[in-house]
Amino acid sequence: MKDKHRVAILGFGVVGGGVADLIINNRAELCSYLGCEVEIAHILDLRDFPESPLSHLVTHDFGDILSDESVDTVIEVMGGEHPAYEYSSAALAAGKSVITSNKEVVALHGDEFIRLAAQAGVSYRFEAAVGGGIPVIAPLLSSVRQNKIREVRGILNGTTNYILTRMFNDGVDLSTALKDAQARGYAEANPAADIEGIDAARKITILTALATDVLPSVDEVYTEGITGIREADVRLARKIGHEIKLVGRCIAGEAGLPTVCVAPFLIPGDSPLATVSGVYNAVEVIAEPLGNVMFYGQGAGAGATASAVVGDLIPIISTGGVNPIAAGFNRVSESVRPNFDRLKSRFYLAFDGADEKIASALGEVIENGGEIAVLTEKIAEADMQQRLSTLGAKPLSVIRFI
Amino acid sequence: MKDKHRVAILGFGVVGGGVADLIINNRAELCSYLGCEVEIAHILDLRDFPESPLSHLVTHDFGDILSDESVDTVIEVMGGEHPAYEYSSAALAAGKSVITSNKEVVALHGDEFIRLAAQAGVSYRFEAAVGGGIPVIAPLLSSVRQNKIREVRGILNGTTNYILTRMFNDGVDLSTALKDAQARGYAEANPAADIEGIDAARKITILTALATDVLPSVDEVYTEGITGIREADVRLARKIGHEIKLVGRCIAGEAGLPTVCVAPFLIPGDSPLATVSGVYNAVEVIAEPLGNVMFYGQGAGAGATASAVVGDLIPIISTGGVNPIAAGFNRVSESVRPNFDRLKSRFYLAFDGADEKIASALGEVIENGGEIAVLTEKIAEADMQQRLSTLGAKPLSVIRFI
Repeated sequence: MKDKHRVAILGFGVVGGGVADLIINNRAELCSYLGCEVEIAHILDLRDFPESPLSHLVTHDFGDILSDESVDTVIEVMGGEHPAYEYSSAALAAGKSVITSNKEVVALHGDEFIRLAAQAGVSYRFEAAVGGGIPVIAPLLSSVRQNKIREVRGILNGTTNYILTRMFNDGVDLSTALKDAQARGYAEANPAADIEGIDAARKITILTALATDVLPSVDEVYTEGITGIREADVRLARKIGHEIKLVGRCIAGEAGLPTVCVAPFLIPGDSPLATVSGVYNAVEVIAEPLGNVMFYGQGAGAGATASAVVGDLIPIISTGGVNPIAAGFNRVSESVRPNFDRLKSRFYLAFDGADEKIASALGEVIENGGEIAVLTEKIAEADMQQRLSTLGAKPLSVIRFI
Repeated sequence: MKDKHRVAILGFGVVGGGVADLIINNRAELCSYLGCEVEIAHILDLRDFPESPLSHLVTHDFGDILSDESVDTVIEVMGGEHPAYEYSSAALAAGKSVITSNKEVVALHGDEFIRLAAQAGVSYRFEAAVGGGIPVIAPLLSSVRQNKIREVRGILNGTTNYILTRMFNDGVDLSTALKDAQARGYAEANPAADIEGIDAARKITILTALATDVLPSVDEVYTEGITGIREADVRLARKIGHEIKLVGRCIAGEAGLPTVCVAPFLIPGDSPLATVSGVYNAVEVIAEPLGNVMFYGQGAGAGATASAVVGDLIPIISTGGVNPIAAGFNRVSESVRPNFDRLKSRFYLAFDGADEKIASALGEVIENGGEIAVLTEKIAEADMQQRLSTLGAKPLSVIRFI
């Protein structure tokens, strides 16, 4: 084991800054624990940072990093597909390990990079791409895979969980909660990737590959965000002792492909996932014979993400870079979408008071502040769509029970 | 990597049986994931198991296992300090890795065995000794230690958590809840180790070593169980929106020794630990810059424990037995007890109605169904004891806020 492990950080934004801070502030912990110094060799960014004590490390030219043989690991925390894809590819081919928080790149190209890393005898690691600071990937691969995994489900997006928590705890509408989230920096100015479920879809895609060795196409994952959640839905959920959470789910198939989806789900109020509030995330695994385990923590934020990124250095330094057990991450061409169409769930549907006849035809009817709420028996997704179509039904809301 | 990894199981009780079941039932998962077959070579037990399909593997003589060079790993799931200590010691000296669920042996001898394993070039692993099936040790060592750990706290005993949950949810007294736990197999006929907090104390001792590299003496850990919890205490906790949980805590010292204790604590009802119910356990880590993470799952039971035991095979098989980064586990001679005496907490004290004068001298007074509940400001443990002594106070209950 070398005395020094030299890293290059690509991107000096919130996460990159957090990574640099951690490496510097926790130098003693890292050194004693890893048995070697972690040194920042270069920081890549388009901007200059004249006020930063690290400004002398900043370069605008990726070539400086690629050609520096003393750089052991590249930390890619740039965000976005390009040029993160190109830089990661070049770094791995040049025999440098890559650690990333970039869920888009991992979901779209993780299979390619895992293979490339294996060929080059280095690692491609991405704990920070899934649960932010929560250790998820490491425990999944080292402590859970000996079981038969039945399902992996998670609250994977802090922005939407914060919004839903506000709606539940404070009785505000989605628009108000979103503005509040933006004011606090929990949501982007353009929040679409979060509130439309795309961020969660990328993360459940990665989790699916880790749990089942099948890497589906993100585009084939049924993805529904929270934009349709109304105060009346929150009211109904509370009435029946449930919470509404945006949940990504990977349900193992008996043989063949898993069922993968992201959608709002009604969850019993006393179940572990239901208690996850605000910007916190959690991943729950249901496996045999282990039972239920859950990993909970902050899904985003400089400190939490930096922790996960630097944590990925530990196995790289200790095993010299090679993943002895690599996740399968086998991209499949078949779509996982037909499995979702077969998924059986109970549904909550909301109807205008005038639609009582249609509502009663669908299931148990509950009055809900002027609306009619219907709770159905378990029915497959495709069959539910069919029934609604046949009845000419126009529900105000459709939310599945988990 | 060899084709076969041969294991010997010491103890064919609930856990040993669960381990054997997992190895056999999940053969496909293990084989594809580990890249090799796991084979049970011997099972040690005093009893015969004529009905078992594995009866031909049962031996009463540890010598059969020790002298069998083809045995790679010994799985010690016997319980009790002896002869588990002797068998573990001999196995490690003979160059066999040891995996255990035995919290008593780990708390008392973990330091010795980690060093012995390192000398012999093998592993001593004990995930199952801490959180049952919850991955705790692996994530702590691989995903958390890069942070400054401020505190590790956990609900570490399912028996007591089940009892407290029953008292809270159903308003029964401790004696009733205990009988129910025993009827369900969640508590032993002699439940002392659980309800007096000794089991939790062993586990927090192990966690302390993993989080801080200091292995204290279990005897020096302030240990208070749940035997003093009364219905009136539950009533007061609910009144102020809190739960009472038996929590093991390791609070990092600024420099030097940590503060380690086990006691009932009042926890805000919306905090993650407060939502852990029934036989479930959870370990929460507060660290910088990571923030709060929590690991949750079943702390006991054949399936959960077997999962953790077999999970420990993964790094043994993949890295050929050596722990590249070993926990410090340094036994210290100094007592951790003085740090507890300095721990500042807010206290809830219950007094008989007649003791109002004494009660008001201690803090804010709340009427509680005929009793007087006092909520104090933060005060150090030793100072609280002193004040109670000076006032001649005889509280009906003393419970700290976390």
